[in-house]
Amino acid sequence: MREEATAFVPGHITGFFSAHPDDDPTKAGSRGAGLTLTDGVTVTVRPTVTEASGTEILLEDSDTADDADEGDTGDDDRQFTPVSVEPVETVLETLAVSARVEVETDLPLGAGFGTSGAMALGTALAANHVFDRKLSENELVTIAHGAEVQAGTGLGDVVAQARGGIPIRLEPGAPAYNLLDAIPARARVEYVSFGDLSTPDVLSGDTDRLSQAGKQALSRVVEEPTLASFIFASRGFAREAELLTPDVLEALEDVAATGGQASMAMLGNTVFAFGTGLSDAGYDPSVCGTHPAGAMLE
Amino acid sequence: MREEATAFVPGHITGFFSAHPDDDPTKAGSRGAGLTLTDGVTVTVRPTVTEASGTEILLEDSDTADDADEGDTGDDDRQFTPVSVEPVETVLETLAVSARVEVETDLPLGAGFGTSGAMALGTALAANHVFDRKLSENELVTIAHGAEVQAGTGLGDVVAQARGGIPIRLEPGAPAYNLLDAIPARARVEYVSFGDLSTPDVLSGDTDRLSQAGKQALSRVVEEPTLASFIFASRGFAREAELLTPDVLEALEDVAATGGQASMAMLGNTVFAFGTGLSDAGYDPSVCGTHPAGAMLE
Repeated sequence: MREEATAFVPGHITGFFSAHPDDDPTKAGSRGAGLTLTDGVTVTVRPTVTEASGTEILLEDSDTADDADEGDTGDDDRQFTPVSVEPVETVLETLAVSARVEVETDLPLGAGFGTSGAMALGTALAANHVFDRKLSENELVTIAHGAEVQAGTGLGDVVAQARGGIPIRLEPGAPAYNLLDAIPARARVEYVSFGDLSTPDVLSGDTDRLSQAGKQALSRVVEEPTLASFIFASRGFAREAELLTPDVLEALEDVAATGGQASMAMLGNTVFAFGTGLSDAGYDPSVCGTHPAGAMLE
Repeated sequence: MREEATAFVPGHITGFFSAHPDDDPTKAGSRGAGLTLTDGVTVTVRPTVTEASGTEILLEDSDTADDADEGDTGDDDRQFTPVSVEPVETVLETLAVSARVEVETDLPLGAGFGTSGAMALGTALAANHVFDRKLSENELVTIAHGAEVQAGTGLGDVVAQARGGIPIRLEPGAPAYNLLDAIPARARVEYVSFGDLSTPDVLSGDTDRLSQAGKQALSRVVEEPTLASFIFASRGFAREAELLTPDVLEALEDVAATGGQASMAMLGNTVFAFGTGLSDAGYDPSVCGTHPAGAMLE
């Protein structure tokens, strides 16, 4: 057993999707396309001190993380908040381990960046390494995907985050069933988040209209796998699936007025743009890029 | 049309493989496993000045590349040698473009690092971007894989280089047919190359014994997808397939004598080791690491 292992998982903004439920969580998933991001989630896994102490999931307070980075004041100043993240707990149970899991991210939670999927996948990669579980990459992705589907927190983030780049999810599910392609491009990405939008609420509602719009968007991007068609298809999807929030709608109009390209992160009260779309429109966005690689051990 | 585009493709050392020929180059390929490397090939594609000037492939002289890096004396000091690389020419013909292709690499050519596959894949990614061909990542990988298979220069490097990490090739062929997994690990890699070993000569000979040994090695790594089982299976493969050269055999014995783990790059007169295996044994190796990402535009 190793003392600890750390994995980085890119954030993932879904531009459009169609939901494909299935009783088998490894077959359930979504079709669609999105951007993996250089802003992501870092997960560190350590064995718990005693078996009895059980699993702990700790979210690093982002203010203390920033202080530690800037002032180089060491680990002691970092502050953690215990959190409950069902997919992470399921992953650890599947691997039959108890662990202390520390999560660091600059991404807002519950805002359409696939942070729950990232935590699940990062935990799977790091725990496999710490506890010498000898599972393959596809097996770990399958465990994290299944945990996320069972928790109802996402359908396609984990497989996209495992691939990296700008993944197109042609067929849903875990690696044994899915089919992925990608848009061969890189981009600067700006985003602004206006707060929560609950994924479970939307996914448990009527998804027929949404899935119909998702299929149309996917056809467009398959026909022309470019950044331009991706953002066009994503905007069309957000409109047709009637998911636009007032904040996002206003931002999209502002970006369009200055000639930029933006859309809504699915599912979050978040707008993202390529290049300088949001800053040109007077917003103060977070800035990152598409991430060329999938999830990785550090 | 853009002025230029640059792609980086990791080198790829195959530890073991079995050959799977097919009349359809998108179905032909190999099963096996290998390491993608942070040492790789950088390919820059520009449109040719006139249609009539045709395609040129230029290999940067590595000494002048080093001088330019160290002395910051600018591009003018770089020297290029015109080369003929059949898979690169095939890729450009498939995309129906003429281009000036500049290739830079620190890796030795013809020594088991998948440089021809890397040149083909890098050309496909960069040319698609420059000439706005609007193909997907899988389509570009398929074109590069097919070009490599048709040239007889490799069977599995391109799909491994597109994935990155430590890929396991469970089923052969281009993305529409193949099945990949990976060992979820990272490693420091040392290597020493003793000169040429021609891939076409070996692949056109009797591959039955080789493929039988490759299947056994794959079973072992699928059962336990770890670095330890990979290097063990690779060494067994090199021995059973009777591919060990005298130089490589001597280096393997030297590394084993100091407790290190090494094997032979397939197909090259090259030995590679994890950690400090070769330097501990008194060699002066090149040092790199496994590459966490697949081929990418820069």
